[in-house]
Amino acid sequence: MSQKTQIGKLALLAATLSPDELEPFSEKLEEVKYCIGKAGSMDTQKIIAAVETAAKRNGLIAQDVYRETHALYHAILESLEGVMRGQLGVGNMMRTVGLRFSIVRGTPYDQKEEGEWIAVAFYGTIGAPVKGLEHETCGLGVNHI
Amino acid sequence: MSQKTQIGKLALLAATLSPDELEPFSEKLEEVKYCIGKAGSMDTQKIIAAVETAAKRNGLIAQDVYRETHALYHAILESLEGVMRGQLGVGNMMRTVGLRFSIVRGTPYDQKEEGEWIAVAFYGTIGAPVKGLEHETCGLGVNHI
Amino acid sequence: MSQKTQIGKLALLAATLSPDELEPFSEKLEEVKYCIGKAGSMDTQKIIAAVETAAKRNGLIAQDVYRETHALYHAILESLEGVMRGQLGVGNMMRTVGLRFSIVRGTPYDQKEEGEWIAVAFYGTIGAPVKGLEHETCGLGVNHI
Amino acid sequence: MSQKTQIGKLALLAATLSPDELEPFSEKLEEVKYCIGKAGSMDTQKIIAAVETAAKRNGLIAQDVYRETHALYHAILESLEGVMRGQLGVGNMMRTVGLRFSIVRGTPYDQKEEGEWIAVAFYGTIGAPVKGLEHETCGLGVNHI
Amino acid sequence: MSQKTQIGKLALLAATLSPDELEPFSEKLEEVKYCIGKAGSMDTQKIIAAVETAAKRNGLIAQDVYRETHALYHAILESLEGVMRGQLGVGNMMRTVGLRFSIVRGTPYDQKEEGEWIAVAFYGTIGAPVKGLEHETCGLGVNHI
Amino acid sequence: MSQKTQIGKLALLAATLSPDELEPFSEKLEEVKYCIGKAGSMDTQKIIAAVETAAKRNGLIAQDVYRETHALYHAILESLEGVMRGQLGVGNMMRTVGLRFSIVRGTPYDQKEEGEWIAVAFYGTIGAPVKGLEHETCGLGVNHI
Repeated sequence: MSQKTQIGKLALLAATLSPDELEPFSEKLEEVKYCIGKAGSMDTQKIIAAVETAAKRNGLIAQDVYRETHALYHAILESLEGVMRGQLGVGNMMRTVGLRFSIVRGTPYDQKEEGEWIAVAFYGTIGAPVKGLEHETCGLGVNHI
Repeated sequence: MSQKTQIGKLALLAATLSPDELEPFSEKLEEVKYCIGKAGSMDTQKIIAAVETAAKRNGLIAQDVYRETHALYHAILESLEGVMRGQLGVGNMMRTVGLRFSIVRGTPYDQKEEGEWIAVAFYGTIGAPVKGLEHETCGLGVNHI
Repeated sequence: MSQKTQIGKLALLAATLSPDELEPFSEKLEEVKYCIGKAGSMDTQKIIAAVETAAKRNGLIAQDVYRETHALYHAILESLEGVMRGQLGVGNMMRTVGLRFSIVRGTPYDQKEEGEWIAVAFYGTIGAPVKGLEHETCGLGVNHI
Repeated sequence: MSQKTQIGKLALLAATLSPDELEPFSEKLEEVKYCIGKAGSMDTQKIIAAVETAAKRNGLIAQDVYRETHALYHAILESLEGVMRGQLGVGNMMRTVGLRFSIVRGTPYDQKEEGEWIAVAFYGTIGAPVKGLEHETCGLGVNHI
Repeated sequence: MSQKTQIGKLALLAATLSPDELEPFSEKLEEVKYCIGKAGSMDTQKIIAAVETAAKRNGLIAQDVYRETHALYHAILESLEGVMRGQLGVGNMMRTVGLRFSIVRGTPYDQKEEGEWIAVAFYGTIGAPVKGLEHETCGLGVNHI
Repeated sequence: MSQKTQIGKLALLAATLSPDELEPFSEKLEEVKYCIGKAGSMDTQKIIAAVETAAKRNGLIAQDVYRETHALYHAILESLEGVMRGQLGVGNMMRTVGLRFSIVRGTPYDQKEEGEWIAVAFYGTIGAPVKGLEHETCGLGVNHI
């Protein structure tokens, strides 16, 4: 089953690239709905809230439909697993600066009945509790919606 | 502490983009050593072996120095956590098609004593055991070397 | 948001109770589609295949629609986490006798736009590798479909 | 080794069913000691404290014997793994309404030297941080005491 | 509650030290039952079997009582978590040389009703799949029996 | 590849033994740099800070070099996995009394290019939230530096 639109790749690029660098992908990005945001803390509850708020404010998921929030929520969790590399539980031990996220909603598959899917990507730097020390991290989660 | 070279971002792009799409980043890529490869199975032991072999064949790590293999090995494991989204243990339940990886070695920090670091990125599609069904996945691991 | 139909509870009961014991819940079970099956091995790949096969054969998910398989797959994984109590990765160290599963598909919420959800439950006994020694275990996973 | 009393099944039913629904199992429940309680928060420390307090107040474990608390504690943790589906560490990101628990102590095996075992079950709904959105969850832990 | 006998410390020393180095602790070791063994593979199922066999052959647990095997089994799993440092699931990716284990059974607490407890310790070297490269690892699990 | 100095074993002994018991190993300990400290809380962030502070104050890692802090940080995390036995995320549910740690820096391998490595060990008692109830625990992490 070929994917006509790689929503995961677009999410990664939207989270990672500067506006200039993203330019060559603008045509591809017109095939999907997407938004970009920032999470300024490593408190997982606040990150999830930041992504959910951005998704609702930008019309990427419906305000009042639980199944859309549920789909987004699990995509966020999967993406955070990549950010935390298997140690979601130690999130509160981490410190972050400049974690950026993107949310992409689209129809990746040719078959009409596969419907819409959602991708959440994070990219930024993550550090030990001591300030000034960090390296890059990223994550990607994909779910049906 | 500012990073002069984002080895993680370069690794992500090298694993994700086509040669044409990677073109605008060629100048940045000249600041680092890197290589690209493919892993055709979801058997974690084989993926690790494929990355290690590529790293040694392309001179990204020294053949006979354990500390370099140790650094690479943990970067691979961290990257695979993103690919498997916290379920490394269920790797054998998955099926993969077209997982691509990149290895980037460089000096991300201005300070000389921070020395060299290594980044490993994966991008591709991953599926449930039933053939023909998959979605995108990615991972990134970074370590000092 | 009240749930008019507790598909998770029905899945638990269908996996746990004997036909006689399930009798008082037959009216509730008419509100949903469900099926019951057995998994005779602790090889996670085989358990997943057994549940998927049962789901398709009994018309609980569509044969050829990836999003339905994707929804079921994650419900199975969540349910197995309960069975393995956080050690999915050690599945191959376990031995099982008489693990029963149920799959329930229904519309748990009053609001029409919440649509259909799927629940997967397991109940049975699980043992250390030495034969003849086991205790009970169960799991429940719920996902939108 | 056959189990004459399925303490895990009884714990699941006691946590899941209404008093009316539990009626047909009252004879079985007379073979064991059990109690039922509620946990009104998703703070894992508070849930554990609630279960321990209920267990001691109802005479299911001895007040001052560490080995009984140790046995109960690990049964609770195993049960919570099912509730959280492998993400115990993200407990603080969740919100719960109406999580019910049961504790059952009995002698499941025919052989006298197998002695007493304890089972802890949870059933209820669990939600994302945004209020009003939740689905069902359950867990079961079993330990020797 | 003071511990009169530190069975965990004794298990660590028995697994780690040479016979000569263990000599100063011989008096303490007379307060407990213990045995020492070797596990020559990183296949978790084989390691568990090796420890169980040693425990039964040396009379540290009863041959036919499930609750004793259950207690030992969870002590082994906890100890292996330390050996694998949170990645039990990737056990099959590892290679080991010279992993030694010890099993100690004793009465650590002054209070008679706390009864017997069991400790399992591992010490040795663990390596990436490529031969010749390894570093030290250890683990300790403690359970009531 | 033989290890001329077992920094992991020395770290374990330094964390576990009393000064008198450590005496026979004093010659071995002269081959490495090491220090010992105490962590009086089970808050993982505070434990990490305590170990990092001790490491810097005793000159075991350089104050201002991120790569050394990064190496130490991952050695601490690996060691804590052993302490928490795979449940790092539930750290906040635990209570600890008398957790001791040691940090050892040395050159374990004969080959000069393998350079320096660092080992972090913990030993102590860990308890359920209810005061007065605990058993022993330990952990060991090893990393190149």
